[in-house]
Amino acid sequence: MIGNRKVKASRERRTVAAGAPSSKSSNAMWGGRFTLGPAEIMERINASIGFDRRMYRQDIRGSIAHCEMLVKQGIVSAADGRKIIAGLRRIEGEIEAGNFTFSTRLEDIHMNVEARLSQLIGDAAGRLHTARSRNDQVALDVRLWVRDAIDRVEGLLRDLQAALIDRAEEHAATIMPGFTHLQTAQPVTFGHHLMAYVEMFGRDRSRFADCRRRMNESPLGAAALAGSPHPIDNHDTAKALGFDRPMANSLDAVSDRDYALEFMAAATICAVHVSRLSEEIIIWCSAPFRFIALSDAFTTGSSIMPQKRNPDAAELARAKTGRILGDFTALAVVMKGLPLTYGKDMQEDKEPIFDAADSLELSLAAMAGMVRDLKANDERMRAVAAADYSTATDLADWLVRSLGLPFRQAHHVTGRLVALAVSKGADLGALPLEDMQAIEPAITKDVYRALTVEASVAARANFGGTAPRNVKKAVAAARRRFLSERKSPT
Amino acid sequence: MIGNRKVKASRERRTVAAGAPSSKSSNAMWGGRFTLGPAEIMERINASIGFDRRMYRQDIRGSIAHCEMLVKQGIVSAADGRKIIAGLRRIEGEIEAGNFTFSTRLEDIHMNVEARLSQLIGDAAGRLHTARSRNDQVALDVRLWVRDAIDRVEGLLRDLQAALIDRAEEHAATIMPGFTHLQTAQPVTFGHHLMAYVEMFGRDRSRFADCRRRMNESPLGAAALAGSPHPIDNHDTAKALGFDRPMANSLDAVSDRDYALEFMAAATICAVHVSRLSEEIIIWCSAPFRFIALSDAFTTGSSIMPQKRNPDAAELARAKTGRILGDFTALAVVMKGLPLTYGKDMQEDKEPIFDAADSLELSLAAMAGMVRDLKANDERMRAVAAADYSTATDLADWLVRSLGLPFRQAHHVTGRLVALAVSKGADLGALPLEDMQAIEPAITKDVYRALTVEASVAARANFGGTAPRNVKKAVAAARRRFLSERKSPT
Amino acid sequence: MIGNRKVKASRERRTVAAGAPSSKSSNAMWGGRFTLGPAEIMERINASIGFDRRMYRQDIRGSIAHCEMLVKQGIVSAADGRKIIAGLRRIEGEIEAGNFTFSTRLEDIHMNVEARLSQLIGDAAGRLHTARSRNDQVALDVRLWVRDAIDRVEGLLRDLQAALIDRAEEHAATIMPGFTHLQTAQPVTFGHHLMAYVEMFGRDRSRFADCRRRMNESPLGAAALAGSPHPIDNHDTAKALGFDRPMANSLDAVSDRDYALEFMAAATICAVHVSRLSEEIIIWCSAPFRFIALSDAFTTGSSIMPQKRNPDAAELARAKTGRILGDFTALAVVMKGLPLTYGKDMQEDKEPIFDAADSLELSLAAMAGMVRDLKANDERMRAVAAADYSTATDLADWLVRSLGLPFRQAHHVTGRLVALAVSKGADLGALPLEDMQAIEPAITKDVYRALTVEASVAARANFGGTAPRNVKKAVAAARRRFLSERKSPT
Amino acid sequence: MIGNRKVKASRERRTVAAGAPSSKSSNAMWGGRFTLGPAEIMERINASIGFDRRMYRQDIRGSIAHCEMLVKQGIVSAADGRKIIAGLRRIEGEIEAGNFTFSTRLEDIHMNVEARLSQLIGDAAGRLHTARSRNDQVALDVRLWVRDAIDRVEGLLRDLQAALIDRAEEHAATIMPGFTHLQTAQPVTFGHHLMAYVEMFGRDRSRFADCRRRMNESPLGAAALAGSPHPIDNHDTAKALGFDRPMANSLDAVSDRDYALEFMAAATICAVHVSRLSEEIIIWCSAPFRFIALSDAFTTGSSIMPQKRNPDAAELARAKTGRILGDFTALAVVMKGLPLTYGKDMQEDKEPIFDAADSLELSLAAMAGMVRDLKANDERMRAVAAADYSTATDLADWLVRSLGLPFRQAHHVTGRLVALAVSKGADLGALPLEDMQAIEPAITKDVYRALTVEASVAARANFGGTAPRNVKKAVAAARRRFLSERKSPT
Repeated sequence: MIGNRKVKASRERRTVAAGAPSSKSSNAMWGGRFTLGPAEIMERINASIGFDRRMYRQDIRGSIAHCEMLVKQGIVSAADGRKIIAGLRRIEGEIEAGNFTFSTRLEDIHMNVEARLSQLIGDAAGRLHTARSRNDQVALDVRLWVRDAIDRVEGLLRDLQAALIDRAEEHAATIMPGFTHLQTAQPVTFGHHLMAYVEMFGRDRSRFADCRRRMNESPLGAAALAGSPHPIDNHDTAKALGFDRPMANSLDAVSDRDYALEFMAAATICAVHVSRLSEEIIIWCSAPFRFIALSDAFTTGSSIMPQKRNPDAAELARAKTGRILGDFTALAVVMKGLPLTYGKDMQEDKEPIFDAADSLELSLAAMAGMVRDLKANDERMRAVAAADYSTATDLADWLVRSLGLPFRQAHHVTGRLVALAVSKGADLGALPLEDMQAIEPAITKDVYRALTVEASVAARANFGGTAPRNVKKAVAAARRRFLSERKSPT
Repeated sequence: MIGNRKVKASRERRTVAAGAPSSKSSNAMWGGRFTLGPAEIMERINASIGFDRRMYRQDIRGSIAHCEMLVKQGIVSAADGRKIIAGLRRIEGEIEAGNFTFSTRLEDIHMNVEARLSQLIGDAAGRLHTARSRNDQVALDVRLWVRDAIDRVEGLLRDLQAALIDRAEEHAATIMPGFTHLQTAQPVTFGHHLMAYVEMFGRDRSRFADCRRRMNESPLGAAALAGSPHPIDNHDTAKALGFDRPMANSLDAVSDRDYALEFMAAATICAVHVSRLSEEIIIWCSAPFRFIALSDAFTTGSSIMPQKRNPDAAELARAKTGRILGDFTALAVVMKGLPLTYGKDMQEDKEPIFDAADSLELSLAAMAGMVRDLKANDERMRAVAAADYSTATDLADWLVRSLGLPFRQAHHVTGRLVALAVSKGADLGALPLEDMQAIEPAITKDVYRALTVEASVAARANFGGTAPRNVKKAVAAARRRFLSERKSPT
Repeated sequence: MIGNRKVKASRERRTVAAGAPSSKSSNAMWGGRFTLGPAEIMERINASIGFDRRMYRQDIRGSIAHCEMLVKQGIVSAADGRKIIAGLRRIEGEIEAGNFTFSTRLEDIHMNVEARLSQLIGDAAGRLHTARSRNDQVALDVRLWVRDAIDRVEGLLRDLQAALIDRAEEHAATIMPGFTHLQTAQPVTFGHHLMAYVEMFGRDRSRFADCRRRMNESPLGAAALAGSPHPIDNHDTAKALGFDRPMANSLDAVSDRDYALEFMAAATICAVHVSRLSEEIIIWCSAPFRFIALSDAFTTGSSIMPQKRNPDAAELARAKTGRILGDFTALAVVMKGLPLTYGKDMQEDKEPIFDAADSLELSLAAMAGMVRDLKANDERMRAVAAADYSTATDLADWLVRSLGLPFRQAHHVTGRLVALAVSKGADLGALPLEDMQAIEPAITKDVYRALTVEASVAARANFGGTAPRNVKKAVAAARRRFLSERKSPT
Repeated sequence: MIGNRKVKASRERRTVAAGAPSSKSSNAMWGGRFTLGPAEIMERINASIGFDRRMYRQDIRGSIAHCEMLVKQGIVSAADGRKIIAGLRRIEGEIEAGNFTFSTRLEDIHMNVEARLSQLIGDAAGRLHTARSRNDQVALDVRLWVRDAIDRVEGLLRDLQAALIDRAEEHAATIMPGFTHLQTAQPVTFGHHLMAYVEMFGRDRSRFADCRRRMNESPLGAAALAGSPHPIDNHDTAKALGFDRPMANSLDAVSDRDYALEFMAAATICAVHVSRLSEEIIIWCSAPFRFIALSDAFTTGSSIMPQKRNPDAAELARAKTGRILGDFTALAVVMKGLPLTYGKDMQEDKEPIFDAADSLELSLAAMAGMVRDLKANDERMRAVAAADYSTATDLADWLVRSLGLPFRQAHHVTGRLVALAVSKGADLGALPLEDMQAIEPAITKDVYRALTVEASVAARANFGGTAPRNVKKAVAAARRRFLSERKSPT
């Protein structure tokens, strides 16, 4: 299941804070002076619990690791440690069961959890925060959240690739027009077209994997900013939380968010890829194209116009690119020019991160669904591919390869042959041999074998080319490269 | 009161849709195939009720106007019209009372309201949608929402200007260093500095007012896209809803969102202004500056470090610039390259609009609060202003004005005099007259009158200059220009 | 003529500064230490003459106005004033003739002009800078440049509207499919479609006009930041330069660039409009659509594929949206969080402004050219419009209007009739009356009059609707609103 | 040397195309119709030679590799191959010598080179383009250019790290205030602060290295889009050009630009890091701070205000963030929603790439220069660090560690002690022991050892903490990790 219905949060606070005016007369509202007291404004702009409670698992997980380390290091007693951990687990259960009451007065997830822990276990709760500060705690939580998001995205990308590869195999030999400038350029295979996206999404996975590897360092131990004087072992907490190592500089640990920017940059690039396939799906579904059809599962319709199938899912997936780029922009602007170390500006990191992750996950899931769902109209695609002298390039290449003409001369001859065909309203393959020979005497009937769309695609069999047998090889290679067990692409 | 606590919504849907995985093992989740059924993905990506219910008032207001017009035109009977309007009012009451159950299955606010209307009044509900489509309905609702947001922002900007003007009047003669490159350049008055922001926010108001005027046309009547064959009167609905006129082209009415982009562009520019004042407040509050202090109302502190007052509100106001620019970017990218008319991409308009409005409103309210709250440290500001030979320019200007030296020669002489003062570790005003005359014999003791920071600011009395009496005039003029009753600035 | 071939500049400096390494071995280059001396780096990052020389006219115009005022106020003698102005005019001539040698050592256009003036007229040149600083000078120059750019854009937008209106008149009755979601929704007229863009570009003009009006204040007199102690008359220079008034606050005058942001925001929104029409042109030119054709003047082709006409100009116009939004983003980020007053950051304002203006001007000119050039394929557009039961909505509306059926019931009946037509493979208009009556007995043969695409569009004759006679009225109204002599739209 | 003075180009074309109007009367210009002929507009919007000639080396290098492969495969004769390669080398020489005449009519660098080759060697030139298209050629050239840019950036980042590490070593024990919210929080060491940036720039290097590795595949062989029917060996050309392999899908090869987006995203993140250090430098140089001073080499000054040293280089470096983010935005918007394969939109990739690379290179070089140049004011930094009860946290930690107080109780006691010190106007270390014991009897005189700023930083000696000996270790480790011969960081 994607999502967790119990933890609704993101951006809700702002709605509360500054939504539609409740007064009927907005003029009256601002007639005299601003009517909210300072405390109320401050609470609204300052509180983050409306969105940061989404990190409750990460927060509790981090606190447990920190507590276990404090016990190991003799900073907290084993008994207190047990109480703290039991209390934290109970709080997690309460939140997941929907029984936890979040308080805006307590500002954020960290203080909400800590306050509840005090209620549950009393004074021992006060020892959990030893050698830790909210600064390294929030840095940890965000980092863990992003790492989890990357893992989800990795799974969704893999699934989308799987869907594309399956459909590519099925359509390894299906002819479609290859477009440049949305103009028919040369015939290609539909499988080859789909495999282009497998490459793109493969690079996206690799980008997320690099981001994950680079960010996989623990900020715990940085405390407020300078490190802690307590005899902590931040190598231990790092290991317990699945990190490769603790961060090497405490100031950096609490003040940088470059991993979040990198995550959103990778998400933007991935979303651009999604948007391109979405655009193609939308165009392919249009009445004049009719290259593919989507079922009701991914379209909305009109009760009275049966042919009208609005590709809403593709349009939404295309549009998500905007908000993900907007999220990257938002955080980049927030971080620009911030002096070290922590500034409250950085509280504005979470919502863009959550929004980018949510938007991308939804787009990828919808896209995988559409790829599996789409029904290709092979005849229509072949017909468009075969029109408009789309094999003229093959004719020119035949003249070079078979007759040894220089490339430019071959082009010149081809131009004349096409002009002749146009004047006769005929396809190239329907030009009589004598007509061809009148223009270039060396042409033989072998040429006709080069002029079908099937010959055209079959001839492009070099590594990376569109030939059906290449597609089959590419499918097999992609399964090895991208779908073998838990292997991250490079 | 800002905000309406009953209508929580924005972005919540996404949280639901793609939040943290509930499974402990994220690997298992994506191990095989994607496990959400197509219908579930589609519902999640497609439904907008999670955020568009914020437009319930706009939706109901529009429906009432449409219904009244249908009755006037004889398209719907008066009896049906009465039932419809009563039903709509009841629904509005239910929503405001928190008693309305929103359904994700019904996708959006329009269908939620319509379905409830059917429950309440039966078949008559089915006549409301005559000569209307969801396309012009949503276009109307968004437009009304943005117009309302502009009215709120206008009030907040006016209030912020009022706060700045009051403080400027109070500090018309308070000396502070005028910076270029954050280096002391010349003495200015603190009131003059604050009045610079009054000008900026005045242009912001004017920008929003232009946006409001330009967008104040009604899209109703466009129906799905082509207009309606029913004998409607869209001039009537336009007037009833406070618009200047109906839109002149039905395709444009349902497909353009330039007013939303313009609103967010104006919000971005305004947020840039807010961010500049925020940055100054943050720097002024730092220990080495200590130009101003903010009270507890707008800072957070440390229980053990009494001097530490973190200017959180200013930092958050500064940071909001990022998300507002991100919101503008998001919608600009969504709209780029969209063929006419409506595409589902455009459903992505609402969340950035809401977020930009919320963020800006909060920033403006917080900034007005900070401006009223801040306590200036006049002595400290004057001391910094008076250091570093900050009146060297005044000396050069005195040489030009009093002795008739050409500008360049005056600069040369001033440079020598300052060098002499530096070598003696003295201020310019403490250089003996004979020392000055040794460099430029024509200098008289009059020169000393030009060398105080008070003289420096007083001398800049041309229109727009920093002189205290100018500030007082500017304050009076600004009250007339910006604060007279309900007057929009031009 | 667009452009001025003599003043090549923008961004050239950066090419010089950090282009491709000249060394074959890039490793060697960085092997030890960074090899550029500090002075060289500083010169490269600091100099702006590479791009700001584009403002030479604005700079000279401003200096002449300043000089004339200094003479009037008795600050500079009439004789010196004449020399200065003659010198400045000569410099302008030299630059326009390509005979001026720009020096990077002199950093910017202001110092290049000033240094040359000294060469030409000697000491008198030194008096020009009295009561002025580079800060208000550069603020003036940028402002004048943007104002000139707005005037050019205004002309180009007007011309584009003129082209659209002409073609709309020609195609007032040409039927095309109206799309939502790129799916055929209802028939519309091609003229109506083109007029939608006339509305959009009309709002764009109005946006630029508002920007021009708001920015039309003179920064001269602000001097470095605080105003000048000299008895200048900045009302006089404002008037001489065509401004409505001097700016009211000297700090604001030298430190704000909101007019430039507003200009680029308006350019972005306008570019989004251009991109939408570009996208339509590209799709309409595709082989499956063939709604329109562009001539060789706006396409590139293939020597051997005669049908291939790549709509390069439309693609480039679509793409320019990206860089214009990027330019807006760039300056917004530069200005975010800048303390008053001038910071060198603000030198980064010019290149985005120039680039946005250039890109928009080119796009608008190309778009006007394409609109005039395109040849519509009326038959093809009508055929697509008539397919797919596109008049089903008209049938439903007929049932409401002629039989008084409630909207919902009408939709139900229509759905059954369409299903019947589909099952028979027939158009709606080809269903026998008895078949229709079997489903809804009250249907009369009048219904057939509603089912043609011509009837469909003709019926939508309310204000704003697609009916041919509406289009003609809209054309006439648009000529009055947008094309009457030198009238700016509101 | 950075840069190549001979190849001036970027963005120059646009200046030519749409600069300032040459006519004095802009009204006249647009009075009637648009006055540029279609051909002229098309040439201006279409030609790219103004900027893509910067890729001449990449273009020639790619052509030589392609030619050598054609010879090996027997597609071109050895004699022709020799002629072609000699011709290409001669052209490269002509361009580098500034003797090459670029023609706008020939549109781009590829055709300019090809045309010149024909002039030089005649018909053999026509064989070079066999089995290649402009589509894979331009894809190759851009890719090689970006790879070269990454190599330059890698060198500059390494150099900047080297500068930071040297200064960090020098200042390993220099005390400065550690800020949160720009408020003094705890003492840290200046060396530790500088090392935080070494970490950031280390991740930046790693990000660029990942980008380079991921993009290091050759697009050659894709031809127009579908691959080539000629018996080419694209593994051979890939190897010759230093690529790891040819790309696996021809459509992907000519249509994706994700490596360019990734490059610009990495550049944006890196620029954000630069902007933060720039901001700090600017604030540190301000009169109230005076933490550091920059020499004349990186500042501009005032002839009459000796203290005024404007940190222009830092301001420009800070500002570059905007244009680099703008460049990323520009290309992301261009690519959003583009159907495969090549569209002319993609010609808009080069200028943002060039601009981002130039801007980043300049910023990094300037920053390394400033880091080497800056003179720290140790006394001033220590004094600010020691004020404001900055070791209150150390007192609380001492109470926890030495007396075993729970964290919360320790904070309570500390609060009371600080309040007492404030009431006495004394520092914490100046409070008599008896006064302390009156509040907490268990306190011993040992406590004073914890209350100096030196003790505070020395105590934070856990991994990553700010202690001087940690800084020394971190410096040594960083030299190994980042500066050992040609090692890329992971």
